[in-house]
Amino acid sequence: MKERPYILVCNDDGVFAPGIQALISVLEEIGDIIVVAPDSPQSGMGHAITINATIRVNTLSHTHNKEIYSCSGTPVDCIKMAMNKLAKRTPDLVVSGINHGSNSSINVIYSGTMSAAMEGCIEGVPSVGFSLCNHSYEADFEPCKPYVKKIVNMVLQKGLPKDTCLNVNIPAVSSEKIKGIKICRQARALWIEELDERLDPRGGKYYWLTGIFKNQDEGSDTDEWALFNDYISIVPIQVDFTSYNTLETLKAWDFNTNH
Amino acid sequence: MKERPYILVCNDDGVFAPGIQALISVLEEIGDIIVVAPDSPQSGMGHAITINATIRVNTLSHTHNKEIYSCSGTPVDCIKMAMNKLAKRTPDLVVSGINHGSNSSINVIYSGTMSAAMEGCIEGVPSVGFSLCNHSYEADFEPCKPYVKKIVNMVLQKGLPKDTCLNVNIPAVSSEKIKGIKICRQARALWIEELDERLDPRGGKYYWLTGIFKNQDEGSDTDEWALFNDYISIVPIQVDFTSYNTLETLKAWDFNTNH
Repeated sequence: MKERPYILVCNDDGVFAPGIQALISVLEEIGDIIVVAPDSPQSGMGHAITINATIRVNTLSHTHNKEIYSCSGTPVDCIKMAMNKLAKRTPDLVVSGINHGSNSSINVIYSGTMSAAMEGCIEGVPSVGFSLCNHSYEADFEPCKPYVKKIVNMVLQKGLPKDTCLNVNIPAVSSEKIKGIKICRQARALWIEELDERLDPRGGKYYWLTGIFKNQDEGSDTDEWALFNDYISIVPIQVDFTSYNTLETLKAWDFNTNH
Repeated sequence: MKERPYILVCNDDGVFAPGIQALISVLEEIGDIIVVAPDSPQSGMGHAITINATIRVNTLSHTHNKEIYSCSGTPVDCIKMAMNKLAKRTPDLVVSGINHGSNSSINVIYSGTMSAAMEGCIEGVPSVGFSLCNHSYEADFEPCKPYVKKIVNMVLQKGLPKDTCLNVNIPAVSSEKIKGIKICRQARALWIEELDERLDPRGGKYYWLTGIFKNQDEGSDTDEWALFNDYISIVPIQVDFTSYNTLETLKAWDFNTNH
């Protein structure tokens, strides 16, 4: 019998979040799992790594088929810690999530959940991030489960193109309303910040970062369109950030004349 | 007379780092500047934003042509704070750096300095990140200055292609040895982690994240090649992470058959 796949699981909402628990419940039927996830919420950590402070790891449980660790670091730290210290062998797959809240469009760049998947990809392992478009702690992850199972099994079977991971977002609707899965491009969007200015008890100013998501992209081939129309969006994400389309334009600039 | 350009300056090594001081000395000759930079080192923060804690800002100096603020947040927070709260108008340019250490190749993804530039780009302002390939606090930034001036002036004059910013890396050699500027693609590379395991005074394990940079790319069109051969590398960086090359491959997968 073929060896069961070995799956590394991470997220950014923390090891005790309902989203990662839902993910674990699906993945432990598919393979042996190792969970290395933050010991506290790390939303918005992007691709941060911990270089000016130390990192701690706690073993939460350890059985033959399932190891669970919490880590004081960022989601990317968790992947590095797993790959280089905790995992018994190189994982066959990295799965991150299920995130509480959307990581579609430009959110991918701020997301600790997707950065964990991107780090898996950098390290050469097929990697997928899952997010449910509902920020609530009480969000219903049940409708996600068959799709997580399907996508994970397909990636285990087919692999992924080199240097590419998947950003999967799931609309926050009931199972019957989900229309299917669409392969999309990242919608062009940004956050219009609102820095909420307050005074502390001693009269000092401080700020909370908040904002409104603004989609600038009408394209029906985007993740935003798919999610708005009750499709699950999959955007293939690359870790090569080179803007190949503009290389020739820039080469034509006269950077090397005398200055 | 045409209005002087208004330039937003940031970094990740902190507002007092020699690298940003060198950058300021060049930019204040070109335009009016607003500096919003971290109040402490934020290397490796990637595109992190502060959403579970508050942010403080301190005014360090404020004259007609030069405003300098320190901010308790990440480099990306600094850009958001500047664009939405502190700047007197939308800046004409965002410049981040000069980073103490290389942000070439895959380092771009971990870099707070480059994330500040990417955030400027997301917010629609031409943005450039500069890094010197020398981590030392005492690094000599003098050879960088004429190139910073040249690149900044060119970007102010020509603008940048939409949704693209520049990742500029400068080799740590004397002025005479710099061979010129090359437009490059991001080299394929990764960090091979070494998690340095230690025991605290009470016998508890902790780790320092460290590692060795491994270039996997022999291409003479890469930033690594350019820097190794004493060229300044410029990689155009895009904030759309979609892997367009793989969209058709993934569309051919049968995601929507019954599961």
